[in-house]
Amino acid sequence: MATKQEMQNRIIQAVETVKKGNPMAGSITNTVTINFVANAQLAVGGSAAMVYLPDEAEFLAKAGGATYINVGTLLPIYEETLPHVAKILHETGKPWVLDPVAVGIGSLRTDLLQKFKAFKPTIIRGNASEIIALAGLWALDGGAEESRVRGVDATDSVHEAKRAAIALAKWTGGAVAVSGETDLITDGSIIAISYGGSHFMEKITGAGCSLGGVAAVYATVTTPFIAALTASAVYNVAGKRAELKVDGPGSFQAQFLDELYKATAEEIANNSFDLEEINL
Amino acid sequence: MATKQEMQNRIIQAVETVKKGNPMAGSITNTVTINFVANAQLAVGGSAAMVYLPDEAEFLAKAGGATYINVGTLLPIYEETLPHVAKILHETGKPWVLDPVAVGIGSLRTDLLQKFKAFKPTIIRGNASEIIALAGLWALDGGAEESRVRGVDATDSVHEAKRAAIALAKWTGGAVAVSGETDLITDGSIIAISYGGSHFMEKITGAGCSLGGVAAVYATVTTPFIAALTASAVYNVAGKRAELKVDGPGSFQAQFLDELYKATAEEIANNSFDLEEINL
Amino acid sequence: MATKQEMQNRIIQAVETVKKGNPMAGSITNTVTINFVANAQLAVGGSAAMVYLPDEAEFLAKAGGATYINVGTLLPIYEETLPHVAKILHETGKPWVLDPVAVGIGSLRTDLLQKFKAFKPTIIRGNASEIIALAGLWALDGGAEESRVRGVDATDSVHEAKRAAIALAKWTGGAVAVSGETDLITDGSIIAISYGGSHFMEKITGAGCSLGGVAAVYATVTTPFIAALTASAVYNVAGKRAELKVDGPGSFQAQFLDELYKATAEEIANNSFDLEEINL
Repeated sequence: MATKQEMQNRIIQAVETVKKGNPMAGSITNTVTINFVANAQLAVGGSAAMVYLPDEAEFLAKAGGATYINVGTLLPIYEETLPHVAKILHETGKPWVLDPVAVGIGSLRTDLLQKFKAFKPTIIRGNASEIIALAGLWALDGGAEESRVRGVDATDSVHEAKRAAIALAKWTGGAVAVSGETDLITDGSIIAISYGGSHFMEKITGAGCSLGGVAAVYATVTTPFIAALTASAVYNVAGKRAELKVDGPGSFQAQFLDELYKATAEEIANNSFDLEEINL
Repeated sequence: MATKQEMQNRIIQAVETVKKGNPMAGSITNTVTINFVANAQLAVGGSAAMVYLPDEAEFLAKAGGATYINVGTLLPIYEETLPHVAKILHETGKPWVLDPVAVGIGSLRTDLLQKFKAFKPTIIRGNASEIIALAGLWALDGGAEESRVRGVDATDSVHEAKRAAIALAKWTGGAVAVSGETDLITDGSIIAISYGGSHFMEKITGAGCSLGGVAAVYATVTTPFIAALTASAVYNVAGKRAELKVDGPGSFQAQFLDELYKATAEEIANNSFDLEEINL
Repeated sequence: MATKQEMQNRIIQAVETVKKGNPMAGSITNTVTINFVANAQLAVGGSAAMVYLPDEAEFLAKAGGATYINVGTLLPIYEETLPHVAKILHETGKPWVLDPVAVGIGSLRTDLLQKFKAFKPTIIRGNASEIIALAGLWALDGGAEESRVRGVDATDSVHEAKRAAIALAKWTGGAVAVSGETDLITDGSIIAISYGGSHFMEKITGAGCSLGGVAAVYATVTTPFIAALTASAVYNVAGKRAELKVDGPGSFQAQFLDELYKATAEEIANNSFDLEEINL
């Protein structure tokens, strides 16, 4: 296992490479938080581009360093676009982040998420209930057959999703990030617990989605695990700092983007986290 | 007629129940203000989830305590989704809020709004011109055959929409909220006039839509009339307070969400309003 | 050539007419920045309305004083809506603004932008790479056959797009605005270079799109060239001022809208710009 120091060095490198290179991560994502995702990606130094149509998604998948796919507000065209682009991403070995928002709701969503199993998303980011439900849908260890997803909110704790997260990561060979009060990130052999953040992140829409989008930005320059850990770290740094300056969720949004932008590589690497080796 | 004090007690109860229970109100709403609607619903203590597809809307309609339907930026799929979900909401007796944005523009919009007459939206929220035009479309008293809706703006005053609002409320058996400089809320037998707000609410997009979304949140825990009145009251409190802190519409948005979040049940109940019995 | 003073007078007149008359400019635009476009249009004193469906777009095209068309996040319905409405706008002589976002990506985008050549957009607004690529697509002078558009970002400088901008303006008989560190606006016989703005405008999404939307608002009351110059000027004023008050892109967004709202006609007219006659 890499030491904590080695991981911090890799986080520093990832953050700095992004700030310098301005890498593009395309997205197919929901209409609720699409603006916040783009702004978060820009704030950390990446570049954003959003599309819906199959050939445009294919273009971005090939042109960008990574792709973010969020199944939040499905439109009919997603039926064509998403499997098409996920297949390309898988076949070309390009990193992609899956945000299985509201897994369990609706037949198209279920069908798409089923298909994604074969295309092995490089990073899966969700709340605890989504991670457990996705593992269930994919018939993996730690999954629940019956989704407890309530709309877009989690009803399970991050800790309860640990087994499912590990199983998903083992399946994809990538990383899984479970967002919650503390964040759990695993590649199937190591677990990182990232601390920080703010209670206001539950009082705004898009904290989770945009974390996925930012993870895609980092995935253009580093491994899935480090990308997910770096994204969680910068979110925890920015959330903690933004909370100190505001007394409501509206101001929090603006301050949070400011802090995403201002956080240095060292500050992100030094955000509190624990490592744990998995012995299964 | 309930006394003012009794109504204030019910407002307090509604606000506190929402803050405690975090009830979910699903939405099918326009892409312009979808983010603001979700953030406003979260700010008052509710939970938000937005969809477009028929079976997903059905899921949310059944899973949520209420549903918000806004016809602002229609997409082709709405032709299938909206009548389907409105019918379910009506048949299951679940509260739903209709925002007849830009009634009179386009054939699908007209067709959908026609169909909604039979499904009796629990709360109708619109500006004066929209309320008058909807009553006209439904051939009710106070309606105008010729819509004076100009894009999404009102060209009539709240007072001019009084008869139409009453007629709509009598038809649905629910409540109607006319938004404007002062807000008029009626259940067909009582009228409440709610004071406050800010001139900046006309200088941002989504003040009206998000009021509808917040009314849906309150409708999960109280009657249509109290839900609409509570939503108007918290908007008038938050608007008034936010205006004092800013000198432009961008900062207003952030402060407004902060004030939605901070307003206490007592402050909301104490927001200035008048009651009037209808003797028709 | 009009003198600088004459142009400043016309800018003042345009700004004041908009603030007084609250003219409506409808939009068909992308879902990423749709909210920011609407809020920017409201901030300068205009009125906004966004749609997707063909007959609704037709209604707005005829009812509004100008229309803003942005091909950012194409949906299938755009195939029907955009040529339909562009044709109407051209035939009725109504001003419209084209934002050829990400020209070169995808077949529908290319097809739509090809069709727009005949419908001669009154104002074309894009970054340097988009302007060069559009001139190339239309086989005009200064265009590049091979688009260097990378997602939604420019890889060319404003100066490099000068020939393409002039050629486009000569073709349409309208104006072209190239956005960048400095903005270049031309009607094919004069070039204006507008100074100001902020480095944060590249760190938020929607600075370009909303500039197009605001140009449409001004186009309801003045010539294409003055409309584009006025829009660039108010953006440069607001960007410069907002930057002084913030240290991150989240706060910048809010302050920028505030400054758009607060900028007076005189301040906008006095924003630094140079004029140059074209002798080709």
